[in-house]
Amino acid sequence: MSSLTEHPNRITGILTPNITPVDAEGRVDEERLREYVDWLIQRGVDGLYPNGSTGEFVRFTPQERRRIVQVVVDQTAGRVPVLAGAAEANVEETIAACHAYGAMGVRAVAVVAPFYYQLSSDAVHAYFTQIARSVDVDVTLYNIPMFASPIDVETVTRLALEQPRIIGIKDSSGDLPNMLRMMAAIRPQRADFSFLTGWDASLAPMLIAGIDGGTNATSGVVPELTRAIHRSVREGSIDRAMRQQYDLLALFDAMIGLGEFPDGFRAGARARGWNLGDGRVPYSNARRDELAAAQPRIASMVHSVLEGLDQPSGEGTSERAAIAKHRDGLATVESVVKQVMQRLKTAR
Amino acid sequence: MSSLTEHPNRITGILTPNITPVDAEGRVDEERLREYVDWLIQRGVDGLYPNGSTGEFVRFTPQERRRIVQVVVDQTAGRVPVLAGAAEANVEETIAACHAYGAMGVRAVAVVAPFYYQLSSDAVHAYFTQIARSVDVDVTLYNIPMFASPIDVETVTRLALEQPRIIGIKDSSGDLPNMLRMMAAIRPQRADFSFLTGWDASLAPMLIAGIDGGTNATSGVVPELTRAIHRSVREGSIDRAMRQQYDLLALFDAMIGLGEFPDGFRAGARARGWNLGDGRVPYSNARRDELAAAQPRIASMVHSVLEGLDQPSGEGTSERAAIAKHRDGLATVESVVKQVMQRLKTAR
Amino acid sequence: MSSLTEHPNRITGILTPNITPVDAEGRVDEERLREYVDWLIQRGVDGLYPNGSTGEFVRFTPQERRRIVQVVVDQTAGRVPVLAGAAEANVEETIAACHAYGAMGVRAVAVVAPFYYQLSSDAVHAYFTQIARSVDVDVTLYNIPMFASPIDVETVTRLALEQPRIIGIKDSSGDLPNMLRMMAAIRPQRADFSFLTGWDASLAPMLIAGIDGGTNATSGVVPELTRAIHRSVREGSIDRAMRQQYDLLALFDAMIGLGEFPDGFRAGARARGWNLGDGRVPYSNARRDELAAAQPRIASMVHSVLEGLDQPSGEGTSERAAIAKHRDGLATVESVVKQVMQRLKTAR
Amino acid sequence: MSSLTEHPNRITGILTPNITPVDAEGRVDEERLREYVDWLIQRGVDGLYPNGSTGEFVRFTPQERRRIVQVVVDQTAGRVPVLAGAAEANVEETIAACHAYGAMGVRAVAVVAPFYYQLSSDAVHAYFTQIARSVDVDVTLYNIPMFASPIDVETVTRLALEQPRIIGIKDSSGDLPNMLRMMAAIRPQRADFSFLTGWDASLAPMLIAGIDGGTNATSGVVPELTRAIHRSVREGSIDRAMRQQYDLLALFDAMIGLGEFPDGFRAGARARGWNLGDGRVPYSNARRDELAAAQPRIASMVHSVLEGLDQPSGEGTSERAAIAKHRDGLATVESVVKQVMQRLKTAR
Repeated sequence: MSSLTEHPNRITGILTPNITPVDAEGRVDEERLREYVDWLIQRGVDGLYPNGSTGEFVRFTPQERRRIVQVVVDQTAGRVPVLAGAAEANVEETIAACHAYGAMGVRAVAVVAPFYYQLSSDAVHAYFTQIARSVDVDVTLYNIPMFASPIDVETVTRLALEQPRIIGIKDSSGDLPNMLRMMAAIRPQRADFSFLTGWDASLAPMLIAGIDGGTNATSGVVPELTRAIHRSVREGSIDRAMRQQYDLLALFDAMIGLGEFPDGFRAGARARGWNLGDGRVPYSNARRDELAAAQPRIASMVHSVLEGLDQPSGEGTSERAAIAKHRDGLATVESVVKQVMQRLKTAR
Repeated sequence: MSSLTEHPNRITGILTPNITPVDAEGRVDEERLREYVDWLIQRGVDGLYPNGSTGEFVRFTPQERRRIVQVVVDQTAGRVPVLAGAAEANVEETIAACHAYGAMGVRAVAVVAPFYYQLSSDAVHAYFTQIARSVDVDVTLYNIPMFASPIDVETVTRLALEQPRIIGIKDSSGDLPNMLRMMAAIRPQRADFSFLTGWDASLAPMLIAGIDGGTNATSGVVPELTRAIHRSVREGSIDRAMRQQYDLLALFDAMIGLGEFPDGFRAGARARGWNLGDGRVPYSNARRDELAAAQPRIASMVHSVLEGLDQPSGEGTSERAAIAKHRDGLATVESVVKQVMQRLKTAR
Repeated sequence: MSSLTEHPNRITGILTPNITPVDAEGRVDEERLREYVDWLIQRGVDGLYPNGSTGEFVRFTPQERRRIVQVVVDQTAGRVPVLAGAAEANVEETIAACHAYGAMGVRAVAVVAPFYYQLSSDAVHAYFTQIARSVDVDVTLYNIPMFASPIDVETVTRLALEQPRIIGIKDSSGDLPNMLRMMAAIRPQRADFSFLTGWDASLAPMLIAGIDGGTNATSGVVPELTRAIHRSVREGSIDRAMRQQYDLLALFDAMIGLGEFPDGFRAGARARGWNLGDGRVPYSNARRDELAAAQPRIASMVHSVLEGLDQPSGEGTSERAAIAKHRDGLATVESVVKQVMQRLKTAR
Repeated sequence: MSSLTEHPNRITGILTPNITPVDAEGRVDEERLREYVDWLIQRGVDGLYPNGSTGEFVRFTPQERRRIVQVVVDQTAGRVPVLAGAAEANVEETIAACHAYGAMGVRAVAVVAPFYYQLSSDAVHAYFTQIARSVDVDVTLYNIPMFASPIDVETVTRLALEQPRIIGIKDSSGDLPNMLRMMAAIRPQRADFSFLTGWDASLAPMLIAGIDGGTNATSGVVPELTRAIHRSVREGSIDRAMRQQYDLLALFDAMIGLGEFPDGFRAGARARGWNLGDGRVPYSNARRDELAAAQPRIASMVHSVLEGLDQPSGEGTSERAAIAKHRDGLATVESVVKQVMQRLKTAR
């Protein structure tokens, strides 16, 4: 879809759904957040996305969520666009958050469909319609059917055609054919509409298929790699992008399968020198032990990935070597991934 | 299990997870809430349960949730026990809510397992352990795997044996064998532990199987019927209880399948003369039309149910008549139920 | 629903979906099958059900399936009714099997909805309609949505009202409210229609709710217990039935969670002195080891159950003792059950 | 992964899982089958795959399945390789079928994991191990978790490394990251192992990601298009492949959502002039009407696809035009797809 990807208003590239740093008392660690934002921007991320799922938005209070966005916007200082997660308890509170974030100067807000209850497509449509009509900031839909009411292809399409304020979708389902269906239905009529994936396991194939970018938790750990994948695809280096995707997949599998989400990504950041503190789900001793035991393996995978990138254009890594490098990871990862997937399946 | 059901500390009977009345401006309608509480108590409910799923707890702000419980406790004035839904954004906020509700004088709090993310059993155990160790109020676990992380039999059992503050479980899975497994594992060692069901479709069979009571949305519409089912089982009138269950099931199916939950229960309350206002999910015109069209049928079913109860001991209704009475309802209901169930299935 | 349960044509009581004995060469062991049939009838089962899921019907050839029914009918010699599983590759082959089994003198055939592909309700209806119009033998529908296309309430109801040849349903979903919905819809118009459950975990509650009987794999291991549960309910001894259900549930959980279905039931039969040979799924060493290790526990549970029954009217077992007796089983069983359930969930 | 795709033993390109032609009496129409085989080969398919899911293998008798393969092998006469579906009732029967097909000269057999019951990974491994050790023909694993026991990444990997007779996997899950995991685990040690996808909706992205080919039902309708996609990817014309994928997806969605699978593909073949008769699921009048009503739309989509291909290198179709062309299809298709997906979800 490359010929259609050039509309200047689109959100493109890799935006980091950043982990929320927490201090020893369990409070948002604002100083650490500012430093982490700087580090991510220096490493080339194309944007920031506070209050995403990786940021554990539901585990912070409304007041904390506001403060998190304020700090990120302030520290970013216009260097990259900010996409602010704005879901609150109900449509009125969500609209108020949109107003607040718009006033702070975010590029757009991202709003997840209502969760807990599973709403019908009709109610999801009504929900986003009310928001889109009430706000002055651009809105991206956030589809994550694992955790929230699904936003189906028909609903996305209707919203895109009816509401100019809705300017894109972040889809974390990982369903590539569905992404194609959405692009086929929307792009001919909304050249400015952005398609972003939040499922790192499909990043390169999604980009090759023509989406605009991603909001990928892995970019908070190895921003160099996610950026490289995006740039490889943009340059037409498909083979290189796929090789890099193998690196990303092995690391993503290892991190997403560790402890409780996003423990694995906190471990990954720690491997980069970032102590972002604990998440907000109470820890058992067993989980503490699991995380401690996994830290060396995560660190090893992170550094292996970075070494691969240091070689000229990433070409130094032969395909065979690239695969071999991650065999160890994969073997261990497999059983962990299975556990995660089974856990996700119980979401009914 | 009748010989074990007599421990005085158990929560027994039918507690109403009451709808939250909302005024024309979308605010909690406190006056209406007080009147509704009085009406429910006068009609014989054994307790009240504000901030349950039927109360749309996730769609209110933390401040509103506090106020809702305060109003219910105040108005109840000790006539019946109050079980207060206390789930907040994270474990610290939840503990604070438990303290607040304990200070208000509730009988116990009910805490749903963390939702949005699907936690492992280990994390669910850690979450409730931290709460149980930190509060001075009795805690009931709230298992609703359709919407939140499941609390499996092993986890309930561990928590029951480790934490005296945890005094019961409200289970809305409707899984009767699982309820038996929990009772078999816990009752011999915790005679004071309460087992309550939140799935009205199984109420009579669950009570016959030996549970202590229910927190059933239908009791907010026809408290006379849910009370009658509970009393029938307690008196050993099994056939009568099952006949009444057929009435309950047809009405429950009709209400749960209507619009967005809990629209159908608001419609049921309206049939009793209660205008409890709109829910907090934005309405489409299609949904408004659906609700308006269904109101007469819901009203007819509600009144038919009440007439059946007016006859001496409910015995006046022959089985054959009881069934025939609800045939109309069932035919229509079937297709609606199917839609709901499919919607629920997408929660993955 | 007791007043309606007396129609003489109904299939009532507990029918055993018997395991298919296999000899050391992997062939159907006809001598052992005859002896096992005698033993079951002597222990009081109300009927036999060859070629059910417990009989691994899909793992035998069409010729073997015919022979199995012939042997069972021949050996039964009219002492109890035979319900013959008759599902074949397609509707024509299924009809041919129905003719064959009818000619052998079975009471009825049981036909599972088409499996592998998931058919729509419309196609399921067309499938059973064609069968019902073409055969001279009574047909029971077999609903097992875990493994085959579901037969929903609306479809069962249509078929019951349209096709006199269809005389009942065996439902293995374990969904009690759905069973109530079916009875409410069908019984007023088809007093001869039988409702049977194939999900042992819900047997007593289902019988209390008014169904006619069950086709329960556990009855091939402890026919005394399943018979006792049925008789307890029929006599109105609800408390005793529920106590017995706890015994059944613990044993069922242990057996269904062992190895590959129906390994656990073969282990249970072995505890009664029956060597029925291997099932037809290739065995790994790990599975052989698991089965060998579990045999003593299964045997212990089986004998404990039987001892409980030997006491006068089963009343000798206090509730507390009944529960305690199975605690060991439960603890181990829990983790196994979880694995099974997760496996079943992957059937999508 | 292009550098690794050149091993000469791999099965590559697009193999057609051909529909089984049926005559007016419901018998396999051998003459039509021969003609259809010739037509497919002339249109450039790289192989044939009788007795796949599209061939409705479970709805034919063992004798018919043998005959179907014999006719295909005979008519193909070595022009393209034949991959024969060989799943039978149990492992012994399956091995016998493998022997028979090997003797007929097939390139390999494809064996689906056991279905109806959901087996554990351990049992799936044991099943394929026994087959692989007993046969003299190459075996491909067939993973279709929607309908049969899943073959997970770990099991595929173990089998690939242990059994040289197992030479590939046909995966119909459509799960692209899982395909990457399998390739990463197996390719470095088994350069001859083939990876094929059976999920047409992901064909181009899968090929771009480095798989060897596909067994795609759509190739029985528009073999020119599936061949073109494969060739586009092989030539590195990624943009062209993705444009062609949009055509394929719209047509695939329309066909898979029509009636009962594979009704839509029979309709597609009819649009090419092939009357392949009825499938073997009994038809309702409603389904007959649905199919008749959809025939013109399917025909229109088929011809539109073919016209696009006639233009030089498929380049004549601008991206924008390619999308617009299928908008009509998509709008209608959407609701149908939703129904199918919901149906598939009920497979639990």
